[in-house]
Amino acid sequence: MATKGTINVQTENIFPLIKRFLYSDHEIFLRELVSNAVDSTSKLKVLSVAGEVKGDLGDTRIEISIDKAAKTLTVKDRGIGLTEDDLEKYINQIAFSGAEEFVKKYEGKEGAEQIIGHFGLGFYSAFMVAEKVQIKTLSYKEGAQAVMWESDGTPEYTITPIDKKDRGAEIVMHIAEDSLEFLEEARISTLLNKYCKFLPVEIVFGEKTEKIDDPKGEKDEEGKVKQIEVTEPNVINNTKPLWVKAPADLTEEDYKAFYRELYPASFDEPLFHIHLNVDYPFHLTGVLYFPKIQENVEIQKNKIQLYSNQVFITDSVEQIVPEFLTLLHGVIDSPDIPLNVSRSYLQSDGNVKKIASHITKKVADKLQSMFNEDRKDFEAKWDDLKVFVEYGTLTDDKFAEKAAKFTLLKNTNGEYFTVEEYKEKIAAAQTDKDGKLVVLYANSKDAQHQFISNATERGYDVLLFDSPLTPHFIAKLESTLENVSFSRVDSDTLDKLIQKDVELPSKLSDEEKEKLKPLFEEVVNKEKFTVQFENMSETEAPVIITQPEFMRRMQEQQRMGGGGMFGAFPEMFNFTVNANHPAITALLSKKGANKKKVAKQLADLAMLSQGMLKGEALSKFINRSVELID
Amino acid sequence: MATKGTINVQTENIFPLIKRFLYSDHEIFLRELVSNAVDSTSKLKVLSVAGEVKGDLGDTRIEISIDKAAKTLTVKDRGIGLTEDDLEKYINQIAFSGAEEFVKKYEGKEGAEQIIGHFGLGFYSAFMVAEKVQIKTLSYKEGAQAVMWESDGTPEYTITPIDKKDRGAEIVMHIAEDSLEFLEEARISTLLNKYCKFLPVEIVFGEKTEKIDDPKGEKDEEGKVKQIEVTEPNVINNTKPLWVKAPADLTEEDYKAFYRELYPASFDEPLFHIHLNVDYPFHLTGVLYFPKIQENVEIQKNKIQLYSNQVFITDSVEQIVPEFLTLLHGVIDSPDIPLNVSRSYLQSDGNVKKIASHITKKVADKLQSMFNEDRKDFEAKWDDLKVFVEYGTLTDDKFAEKAAKFTLLKNTNGEYFTVEEYKEKIAAAQTDKDGKLVVLYANSKDAQHQFISNATERGYDVLLFDSPLTPHFIAKLESTLENVSFSRVDSDTLDKLIQKDVELPSKLSDEEKEKLKPLFEEVVNKEKFTVQFENMSETEAPVIITQPEFMRRMQEQQRMGGGGMFGAFPEMFNFTVNANHPAITALLSKKGANKKKVAKQLADLAMLSQGMLKGEALSKFINRSVELID
Repeated sequence: MATKGTINVQTENIFPLIKRFLYSDHEIFLRELVSNAVDSTSKLKVLSVAGEVKGDLGDTRIEISIDKAAKTLTVKDRGIGLTEDDLEKYINQIAFSGAEEFVKKYEGKEGAEQIIGHFGLGFYSAFMVAEKVQIKTLSYKEGAQAVMWESDGTPEYTITPIDKKDRGAEIVMHIAEDSLEFLEEARISTLLNKYCKFLPVEIVFGEKTEKIDDPKGEKDEEGKVKQIEVTEPNVINNTKPLWVKAPADLTEEDYKAFYRELYPASFDEPLFHIHLNVDYPFHLTGVLYFPKIQENVEIQKNKIQLYSNQVFITDSVEQIVPEFLTLLHGVIDSPDIPLNVSRSYLQSDGNVKKIASHITKKVADKLQSMFNEDRKDFEAKWDDLKVFVEYGTLTDDKFAEKAAKFTLLKNTNGEYFTVEEYKEKIAAAQTDKDGKLVVLYANSKDAQHQFISNATERGYDVLLFDSPLTPHFIAKLESTLENVSFSRVDSDTLDKLIQKDVELPSKLSDEEKEKLKPLFEEVVNKEKFTVQFENMSETEAPVIITQPEFMRRMQEQQRMGGGGMFGAFPEMFNFTVNANHPAITALLSKKGANKKKVAKQLADLAMLSQGMLKGEALSKFINRSVELID
Repeated sequence: MATKGTINVQTENIFPLIKRFLYSDHEIFLRELVSNAVDSTSKLKVLSVAGEVKGDLGDTRIEISIDKAAKTLTVKDRGIGLTEDDLEKYINQIAFSGAEEFVKKYEGKEGAEQIIGHFGLGFYSAFMVAEKVQIKTLSYKEGAQAVMWESDGTPEYTITPIDKKDRGAEIVMHIAEDSLEFLEEARISTLLNKYCKFLPVEIVFGEKTEKIDDPKGEKDEEGKVKQIEVTEPNVINNTKPLWVKAPADLTEEDYKAFYRELYPASFDEPLFHIHLNVDYPFHLTGVLYFPKIQENVEIQKNKIQLYSNQVFITDSVEQIVPEFLTLLHGVIDSPDIPLNVSRSYLQSDGNVKKIASHITKKVADKLQSMFNEDRKDFEAKWDDLKVFVEYGTLTDDKFAEKAAKFTLLKNTNGEYFTVEEYKEKIAAAQTDKDGKLVVLYANSKDAQHQFISNATERGYDVLLFDSPLTPHFIAKLESTLENVSFSRVDSDTLDKLIQKDVELPSKLSDEEKEKLKPLFEEVVNKEKFTVQFENMSETEAPVIITQPEFMRRMQEQQRMGGGGMFGAFPEMFNFTVNANHPAITALLSKKGANKKKVAKQLADLAMLSQGMLKGEALSKFINRSVELID
């Protein structure tokens, strides 16, 4: 025979539960209580508009105060307040139904869940830091009796009638011994700045002293209006942060000022901003900024602040925006992002996915319109945008599709081209004998200087690819462009990089080449360098060291993959001797030690232009060079 | 008149609460249920030892199984089981008292809190992934009736008598639509491997097929014993992990094997290990390994796994061990580390502090005994230990005090010295005319090769300081050692670095110097290089470029601090011309363009040995050098 029953939660156990598990961080209690106060004040305003509260609402500011002697921290509002019945319903019953009722009646179903969160459990977070909590409250209802609810964190409470003249609720927390930090002004100030900076009702904490013009207009000796000191309540929040305003009402300077407000420690101005404003199928407002990229990208990541109806929630938005967008700064405010749920859940949440793809689209659209409206300005910003656009292109197909139209390539002269423009520019000079377009690139103007200058002298153009994503980005370009290949400018001699149907005659006979070959093989490591001869122009270098493109790419891949398992891929280079250079032909007539010394010097100079001469070899080269001067 | 009452928690709301707030990660449910099964099995064994359960306990393995068709995941144990009364007490009442009772009776108060966590709320975590949960159970008590408890996640439940022969509990989870991932074998296998790998009761998931010698001893054609395939239950855990065993019973190979078990993806063997075993004033067991340091230190950090009575809790131990110790690998098992509390709380927790300082002490003692017992072996490991010891020295005073006795300095010849040994070694040669000991160092054997080889030719010793912490570590050494200063070997000419009371005569008259000075000032940037003459040996370089120690340190400081605010500190170098070098005296007789060309070449060679010749300047140097050969 089956027994039926109802699971019973014993209330004695709910407080340790709240204290230990509910919030990972105790400091959250302040956010919860101030949010409750804001809600209560907002409701009063709704009721006033609906005509259910008559007359002037008076001062509706929320006050936070510390009494060190009494060891209390108090959050006081002038909102709707609570009657004894309300206390019974909303505080003594840990339940959600109360808030739901209110929301249904006055606002419709939308947003209900958000307000629910601020009832009941929100209030109980006070017990994370307080050993006793009092609620002194007077309801807005006509003829209401002020009451004080009191509990020491056990399920027992008392309610007593009190004398209280002003409408609203005062939460008095008697701070526990292990939480005395919350009686420090500096600590509370920091918390208010973190969680409450943009709440929609004015919040006062302490006083501030300011100098203002004497209202009586009295003047000092110099004839200027006298300054007098005034002390007034210190409002800690900006009730109308920029993102809740209409973009049409805002100037460029407003956006910059808000950026400084968000990131007071940042010296740089943002490159541009995007104002987000979505009503359907989810609610989202916000402003995103594109920052000046710093050398250490990591410290710039995850600076986006997430709000829910102006309440700060977190600055960990990794799961909400795609990774390449975590470089952006700014604010996202959405009541539709589920909080306090597991990370894997967040990633699969429908709203989160929609929000992420909306932001991605907005960013791509903004970049496209910047490109269309002021190409010069866009080019000036490109170096800062580059890594971001490349990363987005590599990781997000939808972004890649849009970005293809505004992605720029920069050459070593500092000129910018779209991919299509660039193909056209180099078509004449850089199409090889098989009709393939060869794009030359360098990853450093310094390290490959000699190779770049030789290529440009020949009439070729060289792109500068110096981002950490270069290998991936080139692979992506090669896979999307037809009949185009990319070669680093030092991956072969110029005649081999872009093969034409022209061949230069040689000043050296094959016999002479065979005679010189062992000389060079003696001065370099034969395992690493393949000595070969080529008939180049005499104005080119006597020796050129190159690393074949495919070999360098394999090494780059191995480095990125960590390698290790199969040992390092061997480093192999071509050591190409210019058969037409006078210094090479002159070698034939040199003898003995001097012959070898000159060959070594020529080899070292080729190493030097590839940045390969180091340590002892460099010291020896320097000493030999000093000797060669004498 | 005061009203008194009791706060009432409405049970309908406890399930959404558990589902949304209690665990940040849904996957935790499996850990909770398997832990419950282990506890139940452990209790049976305790009761058996106490004589309260008679006879053989039989197979006590825990079985995890998936039924894809029925969409169920089942955790089955052969532990103590539950009667209908037990269900009422432990499952229908969400409370903590039950477990406490048991623990008090059989184990004493210690550890009670840990077991509490596994009752009630632990079980309810099943509802994070299941839409219906059944408990089929038969108690160990004589004459007990098997029952099935069933609930669909509302507070309503039913209990029905069932027919079940074997003792223990079977938790059948009917997986919800949004959690179907937990019906995938691979997913469950991964979770079991993460959370349950070292639980003390054997856990079976699926079957495995193995080849074994034919038990009948039948032989194949070659006369070898035939291999036959057997399928047996797949035990996924190691019930007696190394850290619960006594160090005396373990060999070096056991420790290495356990390291491979913990980090199957690691190719390297650990350098050494420390076995932790503390009973008072807190419980702690564990094994820490010092890994081979990889190039990217960050990916090696935070690999320590934290367990509580063999249940995996986390691999984020940043708050538990000092930061310099997060580089260690291994396992810490302690029931005394509070879980699920805020980070700020963790840092101020007394036990956590004691554990941290115990581990620090253990690590320092281990290093000291390695140093004492086998100095050569310690030296061989030093390059891997160095950053770790330096970091510890800089951030932890107690560690610093102990580390001073085994910290080694390595010179450019690869020899190692303690600080005291080194002071003695260089005292004769490197004490300057004021009695101050000058320690010379380089940060790269390659980059400062010429400077190092000049110094060693002079009979000086040069230390190699190539860690990222070098500037801080040198500052620390200077502040603790008396009358000792540190100068990088390229921060001045050798005669100035260690001033003696000897002066070399000059081959150039002051007049000749004045004539040559403008020549050099013409070929280098006067703002950046201060041209000066010095009477050095003729075997030294014709020109030496140095950067004064204090200036380099200021720049390093600025770089580390991020700089930016005041603009970059200007780079200033000394350009010292060797008045006794033949190439310099020869300059006097040279004329016009050739004179300038040679001066430029000498300046470039000095730049080259400081790694300062780049880009266009390097290309020009190379071309000029080719010309100079002809």
